[in-house]
Amino acid sequence: MYERAHFNSMKGYVPGTQPGGDAVKLNTNENPLAPSPKVMRALSDLPGRFLQRYPDPLANDFRRVAAKLHGLEPEQVVATNGGDELLRLAITTFVDPGRPIGIATPSYGLYSILAGIHQAPLSTVALTEAWEFPEETAIRWNEDGAQLALITNPHAPSGALAPLSTLERLAATFRGALLVDEAYVDFVDPKLEYDATTLLGRYRNVLLLRTLSKGYALAGLRLGYGLGDAALIAPILGKTKDSYNVDALAQRLGATALDDIEYSKASWAYVRDKRARLAEALIELGFDVEPSQTNFVLASPHRRTRPQAARDLHIKLEARGIYVRWFDEDRLRDRLRISVGTSEENTALVKVLRELL
Amino acid sequence: MYERAHFNSMKGYVPGTQPGGDAVKLNTNENPLAPSPKVMRALSDLPGRFLQRYPDPLANDFRRVAAKLHGLEPEQVVATNGGDELLRLAITTFVDPGRPIGIATPSYGLYSILAGIHQAPLSTVALTEAWEFPEETAIRWNEDGAQLALITNPHAPSGALAPLSTLERLAATFRGALLVDEAYVDFVDPKLEYDATTLLGRYRNVLLLRTLSKGYALAGLRLGYGLGDAALIAPILGKTKDSYNVDALAQRLGATALDDIEYSKASWAYVRDKRARLAEALIELGFDVEPSQTNFVLASPHRRTRPQAARDLHIKLEARGIYVRWFDEDRLRDRLRISVGTSEENTALVKVLRELL
Repeated sequence: MYERAHFNSMKGYVPGTQPGGDAVKLNTNENPLAPSPKVMRALSDLPGRFLQRYPDPLANDFRRVAAKLHGLEPEQVVATNGGDELLRLAITTFVDPGRPIGIATPSYGLYSILAGIHQAPLSTVALTEAWEFPEETAIRWNEDGAQLALITNPHAPSGALAPLSTLERLAATFRGALLVDEAYVDFVDPKLEYDATTLLGRYRNVLLLRTLSKGYALAGLRLGYGLGDAALIAPILGKTKDSYNVDALAQRLGATALDDIEYSKASWAYVRDKRARLAEALIELGFDVEPSQTNFVLASPHRRTRPQAARDLHIKLEARGIYVRWFDEDRLRDRLRISVGTSEENTALVKVLRELL
Repeated sequence: MYERAHFNSMKGYVPGTQPGGDAVKLNTNENPLAPSPKVMRALSDLPGRFLQRYPDPLANDFRRVAAKLHGLEPEQVVATNGGDELLRLAITTFVDPGRPIGIATPSYGLYSILAGIHQAPLSTVALTEAWEFPEETAIRWNEDGAQLALITNPHAPSGALAPLSTLERLAATFRGALLVDEAYVDFVDPKLEYDATTLLGRYRNVLLLRTLSKGYALAGLRLGYGLGDAALIAPILGKTKDSYNVDALAQRLGATALDDIEYSKASWAYVRDKRARLAEALIELGFDVEPSQTNFVLASPHRRTRPQAARDLHIKLEARGIYVRWFDEDRLRDRLRISVGTSEENTALVKVLRELL
């Protein structure tokens, strides 16, 4: 009744189901392992008066730790209330309402919803069959007048990793700000030596999104951060973010988690190992499985025989207390996105799948 | 370089200084007492895996507790990342860029900054000498075509409380959504029987802002909420807020704090008592002090003799480790806004003031 007219026809984002109890939860790409014990210790060691005062509006301690981790300056870092907040802030900061936002589909469904809230049309490029950016991607965004483009690397929901050379080509050609959503980057095989922070010195329009939700097992804490040229970060930090956007606990525990990087690295190795085993087991069951550099796999059951198979399986798994994600979206309806769980969770999934197939 | 052109001339919000160490901090209106011991116990009792999963996107448990506290339905409640997020969300939800936002000055400096980010001009009405809304306030907002008005009650930075009849007149006349920022409402003398939730059944355009930062001593946690007609709340809850805007800790600890309302009520009584004593002491020192229903007082030193007195005092106090707030703004330059501290903090302030005057 009082809301802006364009919201009437707009749908909100629908996050994956958050079941309680003993469900095998492989639908929202959380880390299968718990956060660092040092994080939990920092939590229980907090002084009684810690929550009473406003947090540091700029999260300086956290930003120093993050900057050090990436070999950057604190001025190149902004802390946000989860990675999602950085997406919204990038739109607020760089896009005039009415001007388009570049995306490549399929990708994280939130991008188009945030664009809709802002009344920014989309400049959409379809990824190739192999989930790669077509040669003309940035040219198309430029032609449409996009001021910002949002891409995911490694890609969700396929798990594919675009090489640095691709990002470099996009950054060099695109005339707007290029946000690379690296929510899943911690799970990339270190042998690939993928490190997009090396682009920051050379491309002033590149904004990297990082989150502690996946790699650091802190989805409940809501903490992400952006990395970029100081001039790209400054208006977000000083003008468009809410004054106290990151709470005191997130700042403290987040810094502790980044400090204890060895713990998290071990969990990433665990996930890579389980990812390979899960993919093998699924292939053995007859699934097509996309190669993944994330903590999930995109898998298609019996692709050629029954188009409804993925959706049916998703429903039947849920009835058995196993949650995976199915998207009612082009190119995804015949697939399931399955988060890599613990060894036990993956085994439980495979066992039930074997019974269902 | 990449940011929207209107940000070049825009200034960001400047929060009060957050000094570390042993400073007497009376500049940002936090609660002088610590949060409920039950909150701190809930914090240290959290299971290790609590932070690993995404939080409930709708904060249902917290909203149920808040609804019960106010005798409302959960559909009439939205939880936000501090009260500041509700201000931003109200603007996003109800105001088309270019359309004005109604305000009454002076008030919380963030209102005009959030309007500036959204490219919404201001429809400004000046409060009377006694900090009251002029008769024609809502008519002016209507004439300007405002879709949303933001008012503070009890008022900041004066501490004055507008009676319900005034809010009712504004709500009945104004054609847009009326957000009443009740950040300080917990400190209102219960004898006044002020309760704006009684308006919600009758005025579908009223949105009340509440925060746990002040009354519940949880400024570091970032948790606020909005109360209103279910139809007013729905687009915020389902469309415009970030998917996971409130973290798991804030949801859990916030519900615990609202549940343990008796503890907080005792802290509000403490603040009211110390507020009266602080005002008396300041008057004795020659200050003009506005009557306050909040956890701060607005006080003017030697108003008639030296226009610079307030600013000078603010600087000299800071040099002595005592932080109060001075605003470089019309009607406020000759005053100091002083948060009510603990008995010891207030005594320390008065002692130093006596030496300085």
